[in-house]
Amino acid sequence: MLVDMGKQARLAFRILSQATTVQKNKALSSLAERLETQVEPILTANAQDVAEGQKFGLTPALLDRLTLNPARLHGIASELRQTISLPDPVGEKFEETTLPNGLQLYKQRVPLGVIGVIYEARPNVTVDVASLALKSGNAVILRGGSETIQTNRALVGLIHSVLADEGLPPEAVQFIDSPDRSLVLELLKLHQYVDIIIPRGGASLHQFCRENSQIPVITGGTGICHIFVDESADLEAALPLIRNAKIQRPSVCNSLDTLLIHSVIAAGFLPRVVEYLAKDGVSFRADPASLDSLKALNPAVRGLVTPAGPEDFDTEWMSLVLGLKVVKDLDEAIAHTNEHSLGHSDSILSADAGNADRWVNEIDSAAVYVNASTRFTDGNQFGLGAEVAISTQRLHARGPMALRELTTYKWVGVGHYHIRQ
Amino acid sequence: MLVDMGKQARLAFRILSQATTVQKNKALSSLAERLETQVEPILTANAQDVAEGQKFGLTPALLDRLTLNPARLHGIASELRQTISLPDPVGEKFEETTLPNGLQLYKQRVPLGVIGVIYEARPNVTVDVASLALKSGNAVILRGGSETIQTNRALVGLIHSVLADEGLPPEAVQFIDSPDRSLVLELLKLHQYVDIIIPRGGASLHQFCRENSQIPVITGGTGICHIFVDESADLEAALPLIRNAKIQRPSVCNSLDTLLIHSVIAAGFLPRVVEYLAKDGVSFRADPASLDSLKALNPAVRGLVTPAGPEDFDTEWMSLVLGLKVVKDLDEAIAHTNEHSLGHSDSILSADAGNADRWVNEIDSAAVYVNASTRFTDGNQFGLGAEVAISTQRLHARGPMALRELTTYKWVGVGHYHIRQ
Repeated sequence: MLVDMGKQARLAFRILSQATTVQKNKALSSLAERLETQVEPILTANAQDVAEGQKFGLTPALLDRLTLNPARLHGIASELRQTISLPDPVGEKFEETTLPNGLQLYKQRVPLGVIGVIYEARPNVTVDVASLALKSGNAVILRGGSETIQTNRALVGLIHSVLADEGLPPEAVQFIDSPDRSLVLELLKLHQYVDIIIPRGGASLHQFCRENSQIPVITGGTGICHIFVDESADLEAALPLIRNAKIQRPSVCNSLDTLLIHSVIAAGFLPRVVEYLAKDGVSFRADPASLDSLKALNPAVRGLVTPAGPEDFDTEWMSLVLGLKVVKDLDEAIAHTNEHSLGHSDSILSADAGNADRWVNEIDSAAVYVNASTRFTDGNQFGLGAEVAISTQRLHARGPMALRELTTYKWVGVGHYHIRQ
Repeated sequence: MLVDMGKQARLAFRILSQATTVQKNKALSSLAERLETQVEPILTANAQDVAEGQKFGLTPALLDRLTLNPARLHGIASELRQTISLPDPVGEKFEETTLPNGLQLYKQRVPLGVIGVIYEARPNVTVDVASLALKSGNAVILRGGSETIQTNRALVGLIHSVLADEGLPPEAVQFIDSPDRSLVLELLKLHQYVDIIIPRGGASLHQFCRENSQIPVITGGTGICHIFVDESADLEAALPLIRNAKIQRPSVCNSLDTLLIHSVIAAGFLPRVVEYLAKDGVSFRADPASLDSLKALNPAVRGLVTPAGPEDFDTEWMSLVLGLKVVKDLDEAIAHTNEHSLGHSDSILSADAGNADRWVNEIDSAAVYVNASTRFTDGNQFGLGAEVAISTQRLHARGPMALRELTTYKWVGVGHYHIRQ
């Protein structure tokens, strides 16, 4: 069954890859409009998903994530209009050169092909991913969570009707309309038709894809993020930055997990950090040296600090917990970060250009920062527009994957009946 | 066992990724020199491999491929010196921008990491791959064929001694010194330490890697290459070009497999093609329309033409066989090529700019050509230097993978205690 889906997606991709920017934007505009005007079928389907979710005892947080209403549909349409406003990367010529033999050579940017996306609860992902794929000339095979299957079916139906009306192939957006988990496995083997698998979900989904896929998988979406405060940092400015990285949105992958502090400033600075963040409900897992420097804290605040366990510096907290560790120098900060980071986002706070350079060069993460919050690792923050994923693997793309990261290139050689000598 | 190898390679990569171009080039120079002066241990080991190969009944062609002598070692050293002369891609800053909030953002080119290479007979691959990896700051885990294990051991020993003498970590070049096939499977699961798998060998090796790897695999190295001669082509110039693509080196992946001819010129041109290539020993598999246009050939030459079987247009010939097919127009030529090509190299011969544009835009291959031989798809021909592979998958790199394709990037954000709003 999925083989047919793969074939159809591949054929649709061929057509879509040749569509003009105007055609693609027109279809996306029409979709945005219908998301705001043809809301009834979507909200009806969504209400069924929510009702079933309640029956199956989903948590209030999960139910909230899967719930749509006119305001949320309006939000999805607004993001879509942002995608429309971004430049179309397809067709760009680059690295043009003429070889000594006169052969003209360049690279031309082309869509990746067929993208398999496996995701969980939130139905907005259906529209986000489909619209980014369409804008960049790709076909997609969508596999959403079973909790939102009726909503997704309605949304994909809307996308299909728009594509058909706009003269683009509806088969460019394929939807696996079944909760059968064996179909995920089948999708991961469709290497003849699918070029890339993007999982969006927890670590176990990423692991499952990596272990079972015959198609390259973009893993990511998890981060154990570090900030290292070196001995030259502006400590006044450091406090709100650390707070921003930790508490602005603790449940996401670019939020702060471990604070490393140079030993020279630990005794003076660490108590201030703990007092500053305690007001926001942060609790702490401290290594022995950090515990030492926190001995004099008033007992109410000190109660928020517990000794770090053996796994704590390898934990993505996703919550208001912060690891604290004193390091004796930059070497130890870099070594600790490279060992425990998952390669997402890590920052140094420093007034020392040499230290900053070493951090930038030696930290092996998708995004490295100097005097900036780890929270910036995001397609919109980077000015790229919406992202389909944040990659922490090294091939093809690292960090936010937006429109351009959904493309590849072909080599074009133009000659005058050139033959190889 | 391989886990330790992976860990060591990862640590060595960290060190090598920080090495300067001067350091890396100095080590490669020293290696080139020793390949020419310390030949005895290598030739002794190679003689043992050759003797065992004879005992096991390897074909003369295979024995020739694995044989080294001072001239061949000199050749390997010369290629190495070419690699030294190429620019080091590591450290390049690109896509620099300052965001509206003042955060300075750029990408910095960094090595890919640890590269697993699985290859067959030829021992020169050991030096080629190791030197390209070292020049671009990567560590490698090498798994060569069992037929050359003693030669490879000697070559890797030489590389290790050079690295140690030059103050670079010998652990950056790991060598799986055992013919045990289960170790290949183990390598393919080492996703914590290995970033990319490059198989160099036949289709079955590529398939095995794709089916068993938990690490992204660069598949490639096979091609069913097409030339389409349209009705406007310069037929005089077409003949030597077709000959070049077919016979210059028929056993490689960028050689011509199928010639497509526009129906308007078939009757006049096809007999000339067959007569022209018959002198070089080419034989032909022709579709019914081609057969038709070849009826009047003199019998001696006509004997070289047999009707194409059902699989013939899906066969990479690797020999002096050429498929012939008449197509009614450009649409059919494009459709046939996209269906049967393996996405390697496909060329149109045409004086019509509109046809050439459509070919370039619609043919979905790593390299598309206008009025040029398919044989140009090659790192050296493209001016990139030696290649580690020719990719026919779509992620990360398509076509020749040389030094730059062995790198990725990190994002660098430099702020003044920037926090996300």
